[in-house]
Amino acid sequence: MTSVEELKLRVRELENELIKCKQKRCTAMCAEGPADNNHPHHRPRIDKMSAEVVDSNPYSRLMALKRMGIVEDYEKIRTFTVAVVGVGGVGSVTAEMLTRCGIGKLILFDYDKVELANMNRLFFQPHQAGLSKVEAADHTLRTINPDVQFETHNYNITTMDNFAHFMDRISHGALQDGKAVDLVLSCVDNFEARMAINTACNELSQIWMESGVSENAVSGHIQLIIPGETACFACAPPLVVAANIDEKTLKREGVCAASLPTTMGVVAGILVQNVLKYLLKFGTVSHYLGYNAMQDFFPTMAMKANPTCDDRHCRKQQDDYKKKEAERPKKVVEQAVEEVVVHEENDWGIELVSEQTDEELQAASGPVPDLPEGITVAYTIPDKETGTSEGEMVEETEQSLEELMAQMRKM
Amino acid sequence: MTSVEELKLRVRELENELIKCKQKRCTAMCAEGPADNNHPHHRPRIDKMSAEVVDSNPYSRLMALKRMGIVEDYEKIRTFTVAVVGVGGVGSVTAEMLTRCGIGKLILFDYDKVELANMNRLFFQPHQAGLSKVEAADHTLRTINPDVQFETHNYNITTMDNFAHFMDRISHGALQDGKAVDLVLSCVDNFEARMAINTACNELSQIWMESGVSENAVSGHIQLIIPGETACFACAPPLVVAANIDEKTLKREGVCAASLPTTMGVVAGILVQNVLKYLLKFGTVSHYLGYNAMQDFFPTMAMKANPTCDDRHCRKQQDDYKKKEAERPKKVVEQAVEEVVVHEENDWGIELVSEQTDEELQAASGPVPDLPEGITVAYTIPDKETGTSEGEMVEETEQSLEELMAQMRKM
Repeated sequence: MTSVEELKLRVRELENELIKCKQKRCTAMCAEGPADNNHPHHRPRIDKMSAEVVDSNPYSRLMALKRMGIVEDYEKIRTFTVAVVGVGGVGSVTAEMLTRCGIGKLILFDYDKVELANMNRLFFQPHQAGLSKVEAADHTLRTINPDVQFETHNYNITTMDNFAHFMDRISHGALQDGKAVDLVLSCVDNFEARMAINTACNELSQIWMESGVSENAVSGHIQLIIPGETACFACAPPLVVAANIDEKTLKREGVCAASLPTTMGVVAGILVQNVLKYLLKFGTVSHYLGYNAMQDFFPTMAMKANPTCDDRHCRKQQDDYKKKEAERPKKVVEQAVEEVVVHEENDWGIELVSEQTDEELQAASGPVPDLPEGITVAYTIPDKETGTSEGEMVEETEQSLEELMAQMRKM
Repeated sequence: MTSVEELKLRVRELENELIKCKQKRCTAMCAEGPADNNHPHHRPRIDKMSAEVVDSNPYSRLMALKRMGIVEDYEKIRTFTVAVVGVGGVGSVTAEMLTRCGIGKLILFDYDKVELANMNRLFFQPHQAGLSKVEAADHTLRTINPDVQFETHNYNITTMDNFAHFMDRISHGALQDGKAVDLVLSCVDNFEARMAINTACNELSQIWMESGVSENAVSGHIQLIIPGETACFACAPPLVVAANIDEKTLKREGVCAASLPTTMGVVAGILVQNVLKYLLKFGTVSHYLGYNAMQDFFPTMAMKANPTCDDRHCRKQQDDYKKKEAERPKKVVEQAVEEVVVHEENDWGIELVSEQTDEELQAASGPVPDLPEGITVAYTIPDKETGTSEGEMVEETEQSLEELMAQMRKM
């Protein structure tokens, strides 16, 4: 029979073990939910970014950008809200970079679960396998920076109900209640999701950035889309992009796209760098930046909107943009986006290459647009009731890459 | 007085709470030490990389590189050992990428502690503040991939005893006992540590790659150094590089270098991409690749070794290399590294710019070498007993960038 003394001893033992367990858990990584000021192992929330150079200041190296003359008002980052669609190889690192930079608010969209097959890219860890990507990301990101606000949606934005909700969140989800987000980032891996983002952003006149990595893992790109001003996703398909079938289809067929943490990391890095340059107004914001890992070649260009674009909201935005441009003083108009299309025989020997084979391109739905030699598209736009995708490409201008470089030198 | 029944109830409650706590801790992140097969929340070690396309295979997306025709023998990655010197903003992400790629063994060197001030870069998390960087990295990396072997050294490689140990580990630390590592990666932030790595690698004829990020956080570079063949760190100082005083000095003076997770992520990405291309023999391995984030400009070049280099081991390696080259059939010699120096007035309008101001350059120790217009060095080599650094730069050839581009097109 157990004595009272023995039981009391056992209670004390268990209490001590429990305290130790909780401490250990906390040191490893806190599972107590969102970080807060009462929690000894988390840093407290910080009301105001400080430039003080002490080891305990998580913002000292970012605020130093002001002293270095790179950014005029770094603290402004806390006022911005960015939506990240797709929290996979590129999206998760994108969200982590923005979190560490101290962005005001992130809204994350994804409907996938973490798998061990994702461990060849940064961010997720094996113990998170089985969790939804947004849930796992939310937990890790809050731990990294409790100053950032997070909103997550574990759904596929392409279904009708979810699309309506997605539209609502990007138009009303900003920190300042009821306002639109400052930027939408597309980090998805399939055509349908990109098209959904494009449709939403054209309708809402929402500026967004697109990103993608090729199926063979050795090339990628980022692109800035300003509705009415630059080519939208329906005006011209991306020149270098990931799979033209989504991951689920690939898996079903026993085929599997390759991926590398290096390429994903570089694409996330150039994407978030472009976001910082756009939001905090420094450097040159790239309209299109490609990455060819085999040759370490980084092509840039800009594409104007297509007046015969299939998307009626895109055409409406183009009309609005033209009206606004006409009203602006002449000098400002001249500084507008250059309309550059890579010329067939440029003196620079620069070629833009897609990582897709000719067979894959043939197999892609929709006709192939007439492109200069050396440029191929990753996929084409499927035929719609409004006609074929012929003539959807932006017009070729006589402006060569040489002229573009001359323009850039003047800047 | 407490009854036996009440005490028994309390014991049961505590036991349940303890089980829950242990489960929670494990889900959050395991603090039970190194991952092993007996641990339910860690994936077991994998003996042989499989290409099977299932969610539970952490290598399916990497093995797909073979089917995509990018890499011939991906499994070979498990035979390689890489040393990473400096586990900061670039080095930690570099180590994580290599870990996720399934590298055979990593040897990490750093003597710094994790601080909250490091939270604006990827990898480390606030709860790790106070831990040594190598200890924190070791814990996280083992959790991410238990198949990789890790060896860590928590010391400064520039002190005499540690330098001898460092030399020993890079010449005998490979997976195959007693052999040299396959590659040394310099991810350090100061001149002395770079020079120590350079000295060791010249003496051991050890191929290495150097990386750096500028003090203003918006430019960086990577460089491949093959002793005797390409310019070593003493032949020519890096053209774009981080601080020329180390972090400790900066802190003492109340000055603080800026840093961004984006720039660090891009530099780590292009570094590890170059490592994979070099080890697994695919694509073009870059000799020098720069990153200018303000303009999204990525200059490349190659520099030959300097026959009057201060480092006698470098001069000896150059002699050995010349002898080997003379013995090789003529055709192979022609394919050797191009000796390219950017020409003063190139037709391409491409300029290489350092992020350093003229004042900073003047303040740097050592005389400034005679460089083509538009190229400035981040710092110069301090005067040594053997003379000034004048005339240390590689000779300018008459080969223009145009000729280089023509060569590249032929490849």
